[in-house]
Formats: sequence, C-alpha cells, structure tokens
Amino acid sequence: MKLTLIGAGPGDPDLITMKGVKALQNAKVVLYDSLAHPSLLDYCPEDCVKILVGKRFGKTSCAQDDINALIVENARLYGEVVRLKGGDSFVFGRGYEEILYAAKHGIESEIIPGISSSYAAPALAGIPLTSRGLSESFWVITGTTKQHALSNDVHLAAQSTATVVILMGLHKLDEIVSIYADLNKFDESISIIQNGTLENQKVVTGKISNIAALAKASEIASPAVIVIGKVAALPDLSFADIETLIQQGKPVTSEVN
Amino acid sequence: MKLTLIGAGPGDPDLITMKGVKALQNAKVVLYDSLAHPSLLDYCPEDCVKILVGKRFGKTSCAQDDINALIVENARLYGEVVRLKGGDSFVFGRGYEEILYAAKHGIESEIIPGISSSYAAPALAGIPLTSRGLSESFWVITGTTKQHALSNDVHLAAQSTATVVILMGLHKLDEIVSIYADLNKFDESISIIQNGTLENQKVVTGKISNIAALAKASEIASPAVIVIGKVAALPDLSFADIETLIQQGKPVTSEVN
Repeated sequence: MKLTLIGAGPGDPDLITMKGVKALQNAKVVLYDSLAHPSLLDYCPEDCVKILVGKRFGKTSCAQDDINALIVENARLYGEVVRLKGGDSFVFGRGYEEILYAAKHGIESEIIPGISSSYAAPALAGIPLTSRGLSESFWVITGTTKQHALSNDVHLAAQSTATVVILMGLHKLDEIVSIYADLNKFDESISIIQNGTLENQKVVTGKISNIAALAKASEIASPAVIVIGKVAALPDLSFADIETLIQQGKPVTSEVN
Repeated sequence: MKLTLIGAGPGDPDLITMKGVKALQNAKVVLYDSLAHPSLLDYCPEDCVKILVGKRFGKTSCAQDDINALIVENARLYGEVVRLKGGDSFVFGRGYEEILYAAKHGIESEIIPGISSSYAAPALAGIPLTSRGLSESFWVITGTTKQHALSNDVHLAAQSTATVVILMGLHKLDEIVSIYADLNKFDESISIIQNGTLENQKVVTGKISNIAALAKASEIASPAVIVIGKVAALPDLSFADIETLIQQGKPVTSEVN
C-alpha cells in the first residue's frame, strides 16, 4: 500500500510541479485540501475518487485524526492514495504526521514537494526573502501552533537580522507588532500578502508602527503571509532608494564578517 | 522587453513547475545555470537559443556582471529572455539583482518560483523542517555571503529552537560545528544532504560531536544542504523513538506558550 503526498503549491494552479501532475494523472483516489486549487483535480482520471478533507483556517471541516483514518481506509480499499495538500506537505503541512500514521499501518509514503507560499507569495508581490546587502537569511514561523498560539520563536526572530516570515499569523498581528514594538523596532518594514500568487492577491505594506491600522483599513484577511524586514519595503521603493538601502547594508555586513 | 526568471527546482527535473515548463516551451532564448537540470532544455522549441551562464560552487564560469549584460543584450536582440536558475531565484538565487539590472535597462520581469532545495532536499531525505511537537519554525541561512563568509546569522540561529538550514555551507562545516560546540550543543542532530532529490543523493547524519569526522569519512561534497535540529535525526529513528521525541517536545512547547 502506498501514500503519495503532493504539495499543490501556494495558490496559482500552474505552480504545481510536473511530478505532482503525473501523480494526479495516475490517481485512483485523491484526498484533497480546500487550499489546493480545485482545477488541479482536472488532471485526475475520470474514474478517480475525489474526497474533500480540507481544512480552511478557523474552519476545521475535517480533523487530522479523521484524515489519517481516511488515508488508511482508502489505502486498504484502492492499494494507493494520493493526498493533495496546499503549499508543501512539510512546511507546516502536517504531512509528517500523516506519513507516520500511514507507516504504522503498513503504508509506505512518497513525498512530492510543493512550492511553499512562504517565499512564493512574497516573490510575486515583489519581495525577495534574501538579496545581497539586504538579507542573508530568512526565518519561517507558524502563527498557529498546536496550542493555537503564536510560536514563541517570534521573540528571538524579532531580535535577529533575518527576514521573518509568519504563516497563518494574521489573527496574531497585534501580538506580532507588540513584540517588535517592545524592541523599539517601530520602523521595521512589514508586508501582508493575502491570496498570494493568485489573481485576487492583495498586499498591504507599512511599518510596525502603522501596519495594524493599515491592515484594518484594508480589510485584508486570511490566508495570508506576513513578511517582516528590510526586503518588505522593496516593492514601494524607487531604484535609487533600493540602491541606497543596499549600500547602507554593506558596511554592517562587512563589520560583522 | 521582458525577462522571465524560472526556478528550475532542487535537482529532479520533474520538480519544475507547470508554469516553468510553459515558459520554456515558448522561449526564444534561455540563459541557464549549470545547477538547472540539462534535460529541462528539452522543453524549449528547436530554434531556441540556449546559453550556459552557470555558476557551480567554487567555479564561477560566468560572473554576475556578465550574466546581467547577457540578459540586456539578449532582451534587446529577441525582445524577451528566459533565465533558468537552479532552485528558486529569490532564495539566495541573486534573482533580485538580475531584475533590478534589467529594470534599469527598461526590461520588465516575471518571476516563476521554483522548489527550493532548502526544504525539498531534506524532505526527500525523510526530514520535515517543521512538525508538531518537534519544530515550529525553520531558519534558512547562506554559508557563502558576498564576502564568501558564513553568515553571522548562524550564531543567533544556533541559540534558537528553529530547525536551521544552511545552504552552500559545507566548506564551512568546521566553523558551523564550533558555533554549536561553543553552546555545548554537542548532542544536536545534524544531517548533510548532497545532490538532494536526485538519484545520486547522498546523506550523512550524526551529531555536532561527530559530524565532521563522518562527513570526511563519507567524502560528501557540494552542492549540499545542511539541516540542524531535532528533525535531522528522524530518518534514523524507530516509530517508538519518534513518538518519544514528540512527547518530550510537548511539555516544552506548552510551558513556552
């Protein structure tokens, strides 16, 4: 028996991989998330059984235990199960839990990575998570832990020079802002990207000092990716300003190294 | 004039996106990296001009300035240029520099994200960068800054609970190990993945205390992804051990939140 986990990518259905498409084309049964684009199911054979097990933020239409049970049940029924998940299965996708559960029931797994919204949503909003002179690292953190809390890692991340990316964290925006404010980082750039990579993408950019008000005024909503750091300001800057920003970054980097 | 940056993905040519394939199928001229799988060029039309501008670690076959000049030259000649880069263009890919340079010369850009080896290479080696009870975040850092140094961010990362991923850092392994050793983190799990996602993938896993010797004995080489943190040990553990590890992780997480 076999479980194939496919990362559907960040939104745009054309951002699925060739490998993912090939697996869908041979699927007997697909358990799919609501965050996976519905048009991806068109790759499946006509007689493929399609089961929605999706979880939308805040609305658990199917608990993880139920999904695990469905994987085993369908693997026994069809010999193989395809699991289509939004983004990437191992980037806060709970894919590893599904693999472990399947393994305990004698089902082997194959992983087909997907484009993660953590960097693709910013990219298509004009934000590179790394760029020489601006950022040498990025730190991706969940805004919704098992305890439904903002990860404690944000406190240390706010003190770092990394580009900080927070997934599933829009409902914790006030808490995020206060962590940076406590460090007097009122001027840090921050961008919120809703429906990244899709045509209805919505972006709100500001500073720690005003992002809460801007987010409220714009009525931006989940699912959203939050990016904090110098790079978040880039889409709104002129070439001259960007070069100044990169130049300013240089001496700091040199001293450090 | 237009520049299209395509992320070719981490190695396995089937891990390119559908969007990337479509762009290659319509390419008039492609400037490609040596880290992009050569078979991807088969998607291009027969009369497409293919120019290798690749940079392999340690062997700069073409300096960034030369690549930038080639982009502008070919955009003027053909009206549009496709740039095929290994991994993702914005995850230490210098894609933003190419976009800026192109923009200054009146060339607009489109970004097609690629699967980053930062999480895909670990995934296919059995390592999820995040998993409930084990890791709530991951921090991706370059081992080769503009000054050819290990990013200073590794010092703070080593103090964090994040899964730490270091790209292009194998030649700095001794330095990385000493940063963790200075924090008495001798028992931290660490995995090195060479040629991730490809058939000739090679993985060496150990602890901070012995990884340098293991890496030397195995003759593992670049390009490689280094993963440090609890999750790095998972592929070598039994189900029982994994459950113990997750159980151990739980109280810590609860206290923190």
